[in-house]
Amino acid sequence: MRIALALEYDGTAFCGWQSQPSACGVQDALERALAQIAAHPVGVNAAGRTDAGVHAVSQVVHFDTTAARPPSAWVRGVNALLPPAAAVLWAQPVPDDFHARFAAVARHYTYVLATRAERPALFAGHVGWYHHSLDVAAMRDGAALLAGTHDFSAFRAAECQAKSPVKALAPPAIDGDAQGVRFHFSANAFLHHMVRNIVGSLVYVGAGRQPPAWIGALLDGRDRTRAAPTFAAAGLYLAGADYERRFGLPATRRQVVLPALP
Amino acid sequence: MRIALALEYDGTAFCGWQSQPSACGVQDALERALAQIAAHPVGVNAAGRTDAGVHAVSQVVHFDTTAARPPSAWVRGVNALLPPAAAVLWAQPVPDDFHARFAAVARHYTYVLATRAERPALFAGHVGWYHHSLDVAAMRDGAALLAGTHDFSAFRAAECQAKSPVKALAPPAIDGDAQGVRFHFSANAFLHHMVRNIVGSLVYVGAGRQPPAWIGALLDGRDRTRAAPTFAAAGLYLAGADYERRFGLPATRRQVVLPALP
Repeated sequence: MRIALALEYDGTAFCGWQSQPSACGVQDALERALAQIAAHPVGVNAAGRTDAGVHAVSQVVHFDTTAARPPSAWVRGVNALLPPAAAVLWAQPVPDDFHARFAAVARHYTYVLATRAERPALFAGHVGWYHHSLDVAAMRDGAALLAGTHDFSAFRAAECQAKSPVKALAPPAIDGDAQGVRFHFSANAFLHHMVRNIVGSLVYVGAGRQPPAWIGALLDGRDRTRAAPTFAAAGLYLAGADYERRFGLPATRRQVVLPALP
Repeated sequence: MRIALALEYDGTAFCGWQSQPSACGVQDALERALAQIAAHPVGVNAAGRTDAGVHAVSQVVHFDTTAARPPSAWVRGVNALLPPAAAVLWAQPVPDDFHARFAAVARHYTYVLATRAERPALFAGHVGWYHHSLDVAAMRDGAALLAGTHDFSAFRAAECQAKSPVKALAPPAIDGDAQGVRFHFSANAFLHHMVRNIVGSLVYVGAGRQPPAWIGALLDGRDRTRAAPTFAAAGLYLAGADYERRFGLPATRRQVVLPALP
């Protein structure tokens, strides 16, 4: 039987999603807990393989099991075995052709950036930081140039293993106030570091170091070395993934709100 | 010269405000950093001595120094020496009769409670948790009975060292939504565990285990053993303190907003 679940986690407590020899990945913790409930080894697949320090408010996962358990066992039973920094939100059986990674038709990421003079301490691991307020309108103008199906090589990490750099990005949404800025990105899929690289370049625009049109020029140039440095992992949240309605899943996307940082 | 400053910190990284032999207190970290900038030993006094796991968005502190430094040295210089979980927000000279603890005419605390079926993972150390939604109107009715100058022995920890259990509490403000509840408390001073003990009893009311009038009966009874257990430290934030206008301080109180936990 195939089971899907949604997982919330604090990326500061793990070395990233992916399983590691030292077992420090979120995947390691989840597989360990699921195997205890299932009483057999369990391997999981996830919608997005988040980097070290990146958080998830809704990571969608699936696994196969021969164990017959009520859904609550895959939620409360697993949560009793997971470390405090990870929790299952829901779990339910899915058809065998469901796949958390390959059946996802869209992924959603939110980047939360605190903009203030002094570095954030209270939510240090949970927000990115820029030391000055940013021009949100200019960043919106720049981000709008990224909407559509493009070769995103300009914002792709050297170690990216995606087969193609061409991705379909929905028009990014950016909202900001005196405390910070939230960037929302939705695409069919993302390249490695794509969101953090885009945010880094948008901050250049928001700070007035580059005009909005520079974002379009970067995209057209497909040259990673011309774009701004990768922004910090701390502010990045996997907000969810979308699947065909026929799978009948509960909410697979959740909102991220900025903690108070005036 | 006497200097006042406001400090933000993440309580999960410390064993509480107060200096400890193992140097794990926020006070230890701050005194160490200040001493480096001052080039002499520094002792600090704070508006509120927060417990282990309790956060501060605005802890007001003062210290005396013989070192002549620009205010930026007490902010950026100190921040470069503090651990990531603590940051100075502002610093400025104050008259010699200013005292962060004894000159405070009011303290403000906010308790952030996530109300949802599964335990919070992403902000596990930053919110309290109740597994079900709560009746905010009933909790407001109960909390209103606490407003005024009363003997708060019913909500006082056994180890409390305050000279008197009589404190003047402003009408508490409680706001809630589907994700959680925020409790705001302001008083001239607080007893040890007073906020967490009041929140624990208000949760009994919000969950329907007790009527709002029970809060008044607890207060009148002055018997800690009849009230509910102390609620978790994780959701408690020292939001600031008030001082006479003549001290000319910048903002000494800041807002606490609930992170997204739907």
